[in-house]
Amino acid sequence: MAERADVVAQAREIIAQTRAGGAAAIRSLTARFDGADVANPRVTPEEFAAARASLDAEDISAIERAAANVRAFHAAQQLPALSIETEPGVRCERLIRPIPAVGLYVPAGSAPLPSAVIMLAVPATLAGCPTRILCTPPQRDGNANAAVLVAAETCGITEVYKIGGAQAIAAMAYGLAGLPKVDKVLGPGNAWVTAAKQLIAADPEGAALDMPAGPSEVLVIADDSANAEFVAADLLAQAEHDPLSQALLITDSATLANAVHRAVATQQPKLSRGAVLARSMGESRIIVVKDIAEAIDLSNRYAPEHLSLEVREARRWLPAVSNAGSIFLGSWTPEPMGDYCSGTNHVLPTYGYARAYSGLSLFDFIKRVTVQELTPAGLTALGPTAARLADLEGLDAHAAAVRLRLAALAAGAR
Amino acid sequence: MAERADVVAQAREIIAQTRAGGAAAIRSLTARFDGADVANPRVTPEEFAAARASLDAEDISAIERAAANVRAFHAAQQLPALSIETEPGVRCERLIRPIPAVGLYVPAGSAPLPSAVIMLAVPATLAGCPTRILCTPPQRDGNANAAVLVAAETCGITEVYKIGGAQAIAAMAYGLAGLPKVDKVLGPGNAWVTAAKQLIAADPEGAALDMPAGPSEVLVIADDSANAEFVAADLLAQAEHDPLSQALLITDSATLANAVHRAVATQQPKLSRGAVLARSMGESRIIVVKDIAEAIDLSNRYAPEHLSLEVREARRWLPAVSNAGSIFLGSWTPEPMGDYCSGTNHVLPTYGYARAYSGLSLFDFIKRVTVQELTPAGLTALGPTAARLADLEGLDAHAAAVRLRLAALAAGAR
Repeated sequence: MAERADVVAQAREIIAQTRAGGAAAIRSLTARFDGADVANPRVTPEEFAAARASLDAEDISAIERAAANVRAFHAAQQLPALSIETEPGVRCERLIRPIPAVGLYVPAGSAPLPSAVIMLAVPATLAGCPTRILCTPPQRDGNANAAVLVAAETCGITEVYKIGGAQAIAAMAYGLAGLPKVDKVLGPGNAWVTAAKQLIAADPEGAALDMPAGPSEVLVIADDSANAEFVAADLLAQAEHDPLSQALLITDSATLANAVHRAVATQQPKLSRGAVLARSMGESRIIVVKDIAEAIDLSNRYAPEHLSLEVREARRWLPAVSNAGSIFLGSWTPEPMGDYCSGTNHVLPTYGYARAYSGLSLFDFIKRVTVQELTPAGLTALGPTAARLADLEGLDAHAAAVRLRLAALAAGAR
Repeated sequence: MAERADVVAQAREIIAQTRAGGAAAIRSLTARFDGADVANPRVTPEEFAAARASLDAEDISAIERAAANVRAFHAAQQLPALSIETEPGVRCERLIRPIPAVGLYVPAGSAPLPSAVIMLAVPATLAGCPTRILCTPPQRDGNANAAVLVAAETCGITEVYKIGGAQAIAAMAYGLAGLPKVDKVLGPGNAWVTAAKQLIAADPEGAALDMPAGPSEVLVIADDSANAEFVAADLLAQAEHDPLSQALLITDSATLANAVHRAVATQQPKLSRGAVLARSMGESRIIVVKDIAEAIDLSNRYAPEHLSLEVREARRWLPAVSNAGSIFLGSWTPEPMGDYCSGTNHVLPTYGYARAYSGLSLFDFIKRVTVQELTPAGLTALGPTAARLADLEGLDAHAAAVRLRLAALAAGAR
């Protein structure tokens, strides 16, 4: 708890420094945290071109193909126009409007994350948010990661700043150092970034945030038809994210449980992120239950970010799943497909938040504005109901605004 | 600022007391804040029946009609099933799931608010949230307000507790004193309720909240075709909510501005909530601009909770509105129609939050869960893209989970 309080205090201090010092403060924080001296953080067209030139053609194709799939699935999420008469002469409508300005944050941390760019930028661009900016920490050489820049450009973001951490969140939320002020900040980040997002979201002068964040997790439900090597690989893939990542297996087969345990032991030493895996896999658990129904029930209580169903006829279990971020069906749908390129969004609720929150979607970049329009006949019919309810609530100015019009209509006004 | 910090500290203290003391603490806080001794806060079937018996038939009809219209507009918000192939053999889907348990809060404060019950309970019931509870402060006689109970029952909520304030928020978020623990708390409230919602939402063991809250506001845009008496009544209706409520008029007609000013002076003394109006109307403003386009531009910067367009051909200005909670078109659509019974939701973003937030809707009671399923052919085609991107991000366990399966498929597995 003390550690968490420290992080919040530090994030608050960085935000205060950034607000007070602007560009100079950001330059000094970048030197301190990223080890780079960045005089002008805005990425230039020349830097975009150099980034593209530095990548293999195959890497660029992979980014483009992933972006195309994410675009296809998010474009299908466009909300239809909605306009109905709830009563004759009483029309209610829903308009869709983009959030005017969004700020996307993409960490560098242990590894640059072009996939995070795709997941944030594609829906922002599809939604038509007029101002879309992206912040990402510079490398030690002062450049932004090349794959991050190519992904941004591919997905319709050309305003990119080499700023990281809580200072980036502050710069976007308050419009500092020449950045436009944004209405909402979205994207993953370390504990300081997360704390900074919460601080700016609690300030009415700040900006909204996407969702609360925590360490990533997977829950695999497997029966004796599952391939133990695949299941082990899925657990390890999750576990390599972070020492606090959770990788759980629930199975009704003790035989599979043992086989997965052995397969993990064989596969783990071959992987590069050994220190991370040692910690996260040390907390990994295999739970044997009596049947798959019980496994689903446990999963619903846990509300996993990622749920892999490696069971016979996986699809028939879908109706029983009530709480999960994203679901992966069958042996040929490894979880990294969703991380990168199936088309779904990989920004998902963690830490049990899948009980109340959804993963990122087009909806996080738009607003729904309601409209109502009454005809004279509609108001004549329904107005007395509103006035009656206003009376019941003791709000006589509300009642008067309605009755004044009813009287005018009764007197012949139109 | 100090005042706000005090409120947060007090809310935190009430939450701590409630968590530590459970039912006994709630009873004592209810005695202190509501002046009632409530031994068993759960409303009994007999209390529901007595509430219904105590209301006029016309009040009950008004509640039912309002609920029916709100139901019609919110039922139209049901999301369609979504299932697409982003590539051959790569299927992405979106499932809809209700939030398992929601807690609705309805204040009593200056007046009981059956309309708030309708706005919260109708979408909760339509969404199919399995657990739906409602808390509302008791009156001094220990009963809940009769109209609130009738509205709850009409809208599908039968589990109601006579608990108010920050203690109600804590009881729902943590499942205290026999209440079920909820996943999300929704509804309006005073500063302590708002602070309590923010505190429990910041705690991963707590519950999500609906949206940040602030004093209510209306912005009326009117031209010389508007009826000054109507506009004055609309400003006063908004202003009677709270001393901090904002009521603004922007017009391109100095004549109308003067007429509205006079009409307010005439109407205001006839209204009952004089003390509230004296303060809020003291801060009310009339702004004269050169044309309606400029008025809309100002409105978009202000991002009003309620926007009334009392101008010629009001509908043709809709495309220009980018930030607003709910819009009221023309002279025959007074804002209280949306507060009560047109069908739109009256829980709306205030204080400029309409730039990034939407009003309450069915979406606040559901989650969108994504699903993906790849065929062997789909994985064979797209798997290398995921593995390539994993390599680019240095996540070799991610790449391995894909390549292991690609190798199995290449070797003939299915």
